[in-house]
Amino acid sequence: MAGTVEKKLADLGITLPTPAPAIANYVPFVRTQNFMVVSGQLCFDAAGKLVAQGQLGAGVSIEDGQKAARACAINLLSQIKAALGDLDKVVRVVRLGGFINAASGFPDGPKVMNGASDLMVTAFGDKGRHARTTVGVSALPMNAAVEVEGSFEVA
Amino acid sequence: MAGTVEKKLADLGITLPTPAPAIANYVPFVRTQNFMVVSGQLCFDAAGKLVAQGQLGAGVSIEDGQKAARACAINLLSQIKAALGDLDKVVRVVRLGGFINAASGFPDGPKVMNGASDLMVTAFGDKGRHARTTVGVSALPMNAAVEVEGSFEVA
Amino acid sequence: MAGTVEKKLADLGITLPTPAPAIANYVPFVRTQNFMVVSGQLCFDAAGKLVAQGQLGAGVSIEDGQKAARACAINLLSQIKAALGDLDKVVRVVRLGGFINAASGFPDGPKVMNGASDLMVTAFGDKGRHARTTVGVSALPMNAAVEVEGSFEVA
Repeated sequence: MAGTVEKKLADLGITLPTPAPAIANYVPFVRTQNFMVVSGQLCFDAAGKLVAQGQLGAGVSIEDGQKAARACAINLLSQIKAALGDLDKVVRVVRLGGFINAASGFPDGPKVMNGASDLMVTAFGDKGRHARTTVGVSALPMNAAVEVEGSFEVA
Repeated sequence: MAGTVEKKLADLGITLPTPAPAIANYVPFVRTQNFMVVSGQLCFDAAGKLVAQGQLGAGVSIEDGQKAARACAINLLSQIKAALGDLDKVVRVVRLGGFINAASGFPDGPKVMNGASDLMVTAFGDKGRHARTTVGVSALPMNAAVEVEGSFEVA
Repeated sequence: MAGTVEKKLADLGITLPTPAPAIANYVPFVRTQNFMVVSGQLCFDAAGKLVAQGQLGAGVSIEDGQKAARACAINLLSQIKAALGDLDKVVRVVRLGGFINAASGFPDGPKVMNGASDLMVTAFGDKGRHARTTVGVSALPMNAAVEVEGSFEVA
């Protein structure tokens, strides 16, 4: 049975996709005691297609970047669901690290990253408010527009 | 009353600015047990103006980059002060992550980042010696020259 | 006497180099309780020479990038050996952060980063499987091709 958080997501029409397997000699998450680190998630949609490819400030719009960041956040949740069985076991979203595939000097990374942050607060309420670092990078795997990593306090 | 660390900063003419509020759906810091994660801080000065904008290796000098990194460190301290009430409650500066807005191939990120590291050791002495990762990125929020995030063991 | 992990590395012809000292006002590692954070390591070989300089996607081949990532991983191990005395005290490799010096749009960071991940699993087996974030950055210290940071659960 789905927990409270998952029901809230379902009400919003968000179904957690099958979590992406790690594509090499690493794993999607590691738990040490009550702390969980989730690997950087690309902006795949539920069909396994990248929501946006290319660079912000050079072809990808802020709106599409926000959708991409939101997709990364959904993929973080699907990894946590796979790890814990129930998203209600998340005590606190501790930190999101947002990497925006960005042309030199692109100033609006935070606007893009809000797509991920807003999803976390939608899902978890105050427990979803997190520390955050957003930077623009020259390249991301598969030329994805956004990658987001996360750490979580869990029960 | 200010603690020992804050008095040392005051002796150096450093007044902690009002901490910058998180500019979106996230928070400036999250504490889990004795571990505190502080969101990436931009190089705002006490008047709320960026100390340096643009890229190292393309217009911003190393000296100005160092001043920017130092400003980021001061802003980390002002967040910790807001979180804990007293900087003396910092047990150890665990890690700084330094993101330098850098032209392709700029080799001197560590020199720039020393502006932040030196401030931590000035403030905390040996407890201020931290693990550090410095990278050059293609873009930072508001085209700031430097962004620094931090994690801290706290009492 | 060398422990099990170090013997395995020796069998593979891998000798841990003298760990690189931190080149400024920071330290190579910080331990808090059973959690160890290691500073970003550049791709120095045992002779102290960078395995690869420059950018992936602009002169540095994926093969050379993999060798560079592997060198970073070896340097992480040499820091842990210096910290703990024995690599067998590593309980789990928690997370690697891989920073690839990359031309705009370079899509193959994960292939490069496998050089580091594979070495961790070679050394530690299942305990070496880690969470991972790989991004392409515009610049790295000394124009190194790869930098890798790590966090570890330790006994």
